[in-house]
Amino acid sequence: MSDVKSDIEIARAANKQPIQDIGRKLDIPQDHLLPYGHDKAKIAAEFIKSLADREDGNLILVTAVNPTPAGEGKTTTTVGLGDGLNAIGKKAMICIREASLGPNFGMKGGAAGGGYAQIVPMEDMNLHFTGDFHAIGAAHNLLSAMIDNHIYWGNELEIDQRRITWRRVVDMNDRALRQITTSLGGVSNGFPAEAGFDITVASEVMAILCLANDAADLQKRLGDMIVAYRRDKTPVTCRDIAADGAMAVLLKDALQPNLVQTLENNPAFVHGGPFANIAHGCNSLIATRAALKLADYVVTEAGFGADLGAEKFLDIKCRKGGLKPKAVVLVATVRALKMNGGVAKDDLGTENVEAVKAGCANLGRHIENLKKFGIPVVVSINHFIKDTEAELQAVLDYAKETGAEDALIARHWADGSKGITNVAEAVVRVCESGKADYKPLYPDEMSLFEKIETIAKEIYRADGVTADDGIRRQLEEWEAAGHGNLPVCMAKTQYSFSTDPNRRGAPTGFTIPVREVRISAGAGFIVVICGEVMTMPGLPRKPAAETIRLNEKGQVEGLF
Amino acid sequence: MSDVKSDIEIARAANKQPIQDIGRKLDIPQDHLLPYGHDKAKIAAEFIKSLADREDGNLILVTAVNPTPAGEGKTTTTVGLGDGLNAIGKKAMICIREASLGPNFGMKGGAAGGGYAQIVPMEDMNLHFTGDFHAIGAAHNLLSAMIDNHIYWGNELEIDQRRITWRRVVDMNDRALRQITTSLGGVSNGFPAEAGFDITVASEVMAILCLANDAADLQKRLGDMIVAYRRDKTPVTCRDIAADGAMAVLLKDALQPNLVQTLENNPAFVHGGPFANIAHGCNSLIATRAALKLADYVVTEAGFGADLGAEKFLDIKCRKGGLKPKAVVLVATVRALKMNGGVAKDDLGTENVEAVKAGCANLGRHIENLKKFGIPVVVSINHFIKDTEAELQAVLDYAKETGAEDALIARHWADGSKGITNVAEAVVRVCESGKADYKPLYPDEMSLFEKIETIAKEIYRADGVTADDGIRRQLEEWEAAGHGNLPVCMAKTQYSFSTDPNRRGAPTGFTIPVREVRISAGAGFIVVICGEVMTMPGLPRKPAAETIRLNEKGQVEGLF
Repeated sequence: MSDVKSDIEIARAANKQPIQDIGRKLDIPQDHLLPYGHDKAKIAAEFIKSLADREDGNLILVTAVNPTPAGEGKTTTTVGLGDGLNAIGKKAMICIREASLGPNFGMKGGAAGGGYAQIVPMEDMNLHFTGDFHAIGAAHNLLSAMIDNHIYWGNELEIDQRRITWRRVVDMNDRALRQITTSLGGVSNGFPAEAGFDITVASEVMAILCLANDAADLQKRLGDMIVAYRRDKTPVTCRDIAADGAMAVLLKDALQPNLVQTLENNPAFVHGGPFANIAHGCNSLIATRAALKLADYVVTEAGFGADLGAEKFLDIKCRKGGLKPKAVVLVATVRALKMNGGVAKDDLGTENVEAVKAGCANLGRHIENLKKFGIPVVVSINHFIKDTEAELQAVLDYAKETGAEDALIARHWADGSKGITNVAEAVVRVCESGKADYKPLYPDEMSLFEKIETIAKEIYRADGVTADDGIRRQLEEWEAAGHGNLPVCMAKTQYSFSTDPNRRGAPTGFTIPVREVRISAGAGFIVVICGEVMTMPGLPRKPAAETIRLNEKGQVEGLF
Repeated sequence: MSDVKSDIEIARAANKQPIQDIGRKLDIPQDHLLPYGHDKAKIAAEFIKSLADREDGNLILVTAVNPTPAGEGKTTTTVGLGDGLNAIGKKAMICIREASLGPNFGMKGGAAGGGYAQIVPMEDMNLHFTGDFHAIGAAHNLLSAMIDNHIYWGNELEIDQRRITWRRVVDMNDRALRQITTSLGGVSNGFPAEAGFDITVASEVMAILCLANDAADLQKRLGDMIVAYRRDKTPVTCRDIAADGAMAVLLKDALQPNLVQTLENNPAFVHGGPFANIAHGCNSLIATRAALKLADYVVTEAGFGADLGAEKFLDIKCRKGGLKPKAVVLVATVRALKMNGGVAKDDLGTENVEAVKAGCANLGRHIENLKKFGIPVVVSINHFIKDTEAELQAVLDYAKETGAEDALIARHWADGSKGITNVAEAVVRVCESGKADYKPLYPDEMSLFEKIETIAKEIYRADGVTADDGIRRQLEEWEAAGHGNLPVCMAKTQYSFSTDPNRRGAPTGFTIPVREVRISAGAGFIVVICGEVMTMPGLPRKPAAETIRLNEKGQVEGLF
């Protein structure tokens, strides 16, 4: 319709307040608020340290059914709920991830939220923002250079050059760099070797930045990273290379959370952005913890659907960070549930209550799963204009029957905070009810393979896990080396509970094949790869970059 | 001596003013000052545009004799003179280059100035600063990815993959990336090709950022860059690849000058940092022009000694930017002149007036050269404790005899502004005298080879220029293609007028051999390479990075 504004039009028309005023809402002293322009700021590490003794607010996780091409609106709900909680008089803030720069030049850049539930400044957040990802890239590549430099000058650590696992990164979609040969051209350039680049967000440094408690913990975890092996297969760490200190120095500003605002001038931290497959896919622990000290309600989200994103949030981030979420908001749309019920994308406009009911099986399984972590679930249905009353009612009924504390229709996309006060009130009721009793799905002391099996059976509902002997042996070796207490980080398709992206709904009768395992010894998890994982995207035939430019007014065109 | 403080100790003890207060000294409205923390800011492009009709202040270039291991103190003098001009009641500011991140992890980072003539915050300026170099790297590498992506999807432009001249960049000393093979691993990764990385400051994008008039001119120049050739040797430009717009978007913030302050709280722009060999080696034109609108006296500097740095400043930057310098301050030290007179570094502590007099031949030739551009010269001798009266007097006498307007002893390193008011007053006298009548060394319409010969004979005092037929033919081809009006950018050793770094003083009886020529069609100059040019440094055996770390207080240790 012609009177519906685009996200970027709404974002550009935002009545932004100076970032100092947003900081004032959280009682952040001006000298601890480090502005980046007039609408972004970092919060000083000293100030965050000073908050340690304050009580924590209520943590609310927003997650979703398995993603479909119909869209679910997880970030939109996260932002809308933050605004909604403020609208009903609560001191609330939002924590979400930063966007990666490179992919915006392939496909068009994304909003943080959508409609009237957005975080701004949208353009900066899709470009360099406050430079965090550049800092991560620099720290990562310093280590890469120092590894090769160590070998160049004599290889005192006896690194096996065929077993260097540490690659390089760039925040750009550049398929030509996936697999390369380095150090060609003679003696002064080093020893020729196979190497490659990932996109910056795939760096273990990113995962570490998002799980570190503070600068000292960051430096310690960087040191723990395994970067290569010797001929006898003993590991060589970043600490052995002596890069940990300099990397921490490069990351000291990036470690401080970024403060921005919603369209309704409520505070939001946007900080860190690890991959949701080979890493845990949520914003930094430092940002979430600081938010809990500064606000009474903190709304955050996790990547992908609840089977991957919420599981990792709860089993990795909450476990490591001592977080105790009070409620989970599970997001769905009638359209997405229809697709889970077998409807093709082109047929979504037609009422189909039976398909909605069939698709609710996906929703229901996520509700059951989330309750296994001891956290009450509120279902929030993002309203679309073509949804019918009967379809919406079918979802609400199903959700309540399946164990959701509440289920409501949210209209924040069109109406901002006043469209979601119902969900905000339900969330407050659930938080105040004291029903939450968070516990991770598996204990630290369970064996690594059993941890994988537990997730596969309890969350995905697989019949079992298959893995060849090499993988099982590798897991046992890590256990013998003292890494057995780590959680596991599952990398599989986000489109299905199974490893087949086409099996929507609530599939059964499948196994989870483990193809590869990797250790992120600094981040502190074992990555379990159950499918293709792409860590360096390519550009499409017609990259968005070709139409991005500055217009005569100096404004950015074509990015959205 | 134990009571002499190090540069970093002095910098950390600085009584910095909020950057807003520094901006106020230049009457920059608060909404046009974009803070980055409390001690750095960018100046908004709109504000800079609004200054167009103001009159220009006086531009003063600080340059030096040929560098020696004894040190000359060019940046220290630039900063000290800026403070000195303010101390005598003039509205003055400073413009210098930004430092590159990568090399600080090889050798220890550098101060901007030294002693009591420094620009702060020193740590930030040696780390990410305001992110300009990261933006340049991202823009550069986007183009690299888009070139390979174009070929991947069918190569409509018929690029000859053996003739891609556009490399990649990273702001890191990483010799392993100098020469690589990309796109290995099969069809989905592209066509295997030879490639390589330079350090970010060597990017033509950096040179363009520093010569662009505004965002529109930036976008136009980016489009002009030649990135590859077809089999028929016709050029393919960045505009053909359609990367120019997106690159300009990535650079829009980086194009805005960075405001910081001296230890004495005087304003300084620190902006851009192109290589001084394959590029022109001075801070951005936008910063210099804005400074001339905001202050009555603007002190700036150029890379290397006057034979390279001042020549490029005057023949490239001033010519392109319509700048008309009013005075040149030529910096030397007794120690450096002694080395030019044949004394070894270990013997510099002993008085040797004859050696000083012999070394003055280097100073004298620079004075003569600078006067060829129509600009009066003030010689400023950086005082060292062990300099004797007789040595100092010998230099002052020589300088005046050889045509310097004035020659003085400067003590800003030890005493700050009050140690250099004598030089500041001399500079004001020269500016007010109206003696300056800037003209470039050669006209635009001279042939490219004659331009090279003119510099070689007039500035270096070579007997002539040698170049093989291929090089002469290449220059003629560029002339035929319409590039004949470009200035030339000489890349040779900075340690001698000749191409032999060991020939100090004022050598004669040599020729300049041209080994290679390159075109920077976007920056707008022909690079003339007369020796080894290293565009990707390596790390030393014991990199500084190994001892850089955060201490318990969160402070950076080991960077300086």
